[in-house]
Amino acid sequence: MRFLSFAHGMMPIMAPQFGHIDGHPVGTSYVSRARLHGAGLHSQLRAGISGTAGEGADAIVLSAGGYSDDEDYGDIIIYTGHGGRDSESKRQVRDQNLADRGNAALARNELEGLYVRVIRGADKGSQYAPNTGYRYDGLYRVESHSAKIGIDGFLVWQFRLEKLIDSEVLAEQDAVVELPEDNKIGSSPVTTSVIQRIVRSSAVVRQVKDWYAHCCQVCGKTIEVNGGFYSEGAHIQALGRPHYGPDVVENVLCLCPNDHVRFDVGAIYLSEDLQVINGLNGEVSGPLRVHDDHRIGLGYVAQHRDRWTKGTAQTRRRPDWRP
Amino acid sequence: MRFLSFAHGMMPIMAPQFGHIDGHPVGTSYVSRARLHGAGLHSQLRAGISGTAGEGADAIVLSAGGYSDDEDYGDIIIYTGHGGRDSESKRQVRDQNLADRGNAALARNELEGLYVRVIRGADKGSQYAPNTGYRYDGLYRVESHSAKIGIDGFLVWQFRLEKLIDSEVLAEQDAVVELPEDNKIGSSPVTTSVIQRIVRSSAVVRQVKDWYAHCCQVCGKTIEVNGGFYSEGAHIQALGRPHYGPDVVENVLCLCPNDHVRFDVGAIYLSEDLQVINGLNGEVSGPLRVHDDHRIGLGYVAQHRDRWTKGTAQTRRRPDWRP
Repeated sequence: MRFLSFAHGMMPIMAPQFGHIDGHPVGTSYVSRARLHGAGLHSQLRAGISGTAGEGADAIVLSAGGYSDDEDYGDIIIYTGHGGRDSESKRQVRDQNLADRGNAALARNELEGLYVRVIRGADKGSQYAPNTGYRYDGLYRVESHSAKIGIDGFLVWQFRLEKLIDSEVLAEQDAVVELPEDNKIGSSPVTTSVIQRIVRSSAVVRQVKDWYAHCCQVCGKTIEVNGGFYSEGAHIQALGRPHYGPDVVENVLCLCPNDHVRFDVGAIYLSEDLQVINGLNGEVSGPLRVHDDHRIGLGYVAQHRDRWTKGTAQTRRRPDWRP
Repeated sequence: MRFLSFAHGMMPIMAPQFGHIDGHPVGTSYVSRARLHGAGLHSQLRAGISGTAGEGADAIVLSAGGYSDDEDYGDIIIYTGHGGRDSESKRQVRDQNLADRGNAALARNELEGLYVRVIRGADKGSQYAPNTGYRYDGLYRVESHSAKIGIDGFLVWQFRLEKLIDSEVLAEQDAVVELPEDNKIGSSPVTTSVIQRIVRSSAVVRQVKDWYAHCCQVCGKTIEVNGGFYSEGAHIQALGRPHYGPDVVENVLCLCPNDHVRFDVGAIYLSEDLQVINGLNGEVSGPLRVHDDHRIGLGYVAQHRDRWTKGTAQTRRRPDWRP
């Protein structure tokens, strides 16, 4: 367990530990928040959201004492962010802020495709809640978030959580996420147009983004969004068929979506000395920004460059092309 | 059938007609290129690639007289682009150019997620070819492209085509595409990180992109890639759960990937008079660029804006949140 800080009183803020916790399978019950905390399932003793703005939320608690705008449909949960509540009356007395720690953490989960542990506390009003204590109910994806005027008349932020289907819950936490079914239903099921960013950041990608604080290594821009910044981890030698690049920091760049598109189709590539080359005219457009700790694999760089200029060993070898 | 031009001799260049052609199911045979052409399956009488650089390729022919670097594995085809060949010897005598009509057209298919009809001509060297004449073998996705030094020692461009699985071949051509399986295999199957752009441009999205020539309506930038330009169709009121926006031109913007991300998470939204508002501080960052023919639905704009500022009617109605 890694400790980020002891600044908040006696309570250390732990770095988020994503995914299932060994020895605590889905369905396990706990008598108290202290037990949940002791088990490593949730880093907070009172707050509903466990996690940090920069790294994401690893766990949330739904409970009867929670926010009146929460909606629990079992596999779908509309979870209200925190803040703006009077501690006595438990009513909203001012607008919530998406930049607050827990809210920003859940927004970060959505941006990075991180899963959150859902823990339900006893709630007589909910058919999905346990009768007493707390129960770990598995991993959910943060699908989207929206603002709304809550029951008490103030703005609240709500996060739509969707339980992972079994095939997504692999033993390894950094597994590939399935395409959400969203666009197969709804009012435009047939003549639909889809550009979906399926984001599932591995620890490797998160490390690279962390070095650059989401600043694009090509253009130097940082895209600011509610809840933080946005960047994409771009594999130099592509993952999957037919290139089979590895998911290691030496093979990952931190790019903005625009430069990610350009890099993936060879509109930019890198020279041996890590200059950014315009693939359309061969001109040098400037140096790649490289963090001191980030060693970039020149073999991966060469494979990507060759792919767009003269072919790679792999594309010449027939078996690699086969399904 | 729409005619673009009669400039190329007697042969009109027809606008691409994507998808299956009525009355010509998969498996239908044709005795000649003229018959293929007459059936509307392929717009060219000699060239292998049918289509235009700007709109994409609607059909290709694989044949024994084709390029020696082609590889046919049935459901997977490595198809060589055109150009650079001596018309007598059929050998490559110079490098191919990705900007040439047919090559740029296939690259466009990849960018827009357009399917291409594959027609195989008789070829004794291929187990997948018909014995005589030509056969329509169905729709393929252009998965990726790469350069390589071909058998004759010059640069060729190759396109990896993958046959659609049955569930993708819906009656309607503008159906949702499945997530490619690429990232489930390979050398990094587990700790992988995925950002996949699942692109499947509907006719609606193509119309909007056409108005703006891929120029972003927010920042005014155009992303140049090999084979043309790249932009994304962004639905104002989101498709799918829980927003159920329609796929109509009034609900689509032409954006660069960076502004698409920002728009989708509310980091930018639009005012009633179509000013771009920075969602983080509420400041006006400038007017949205709007083409004279593009009527933007202010109801969709209001739904998107409300989603990030005060909640929408839909997000307040519980049934819409349900799975």
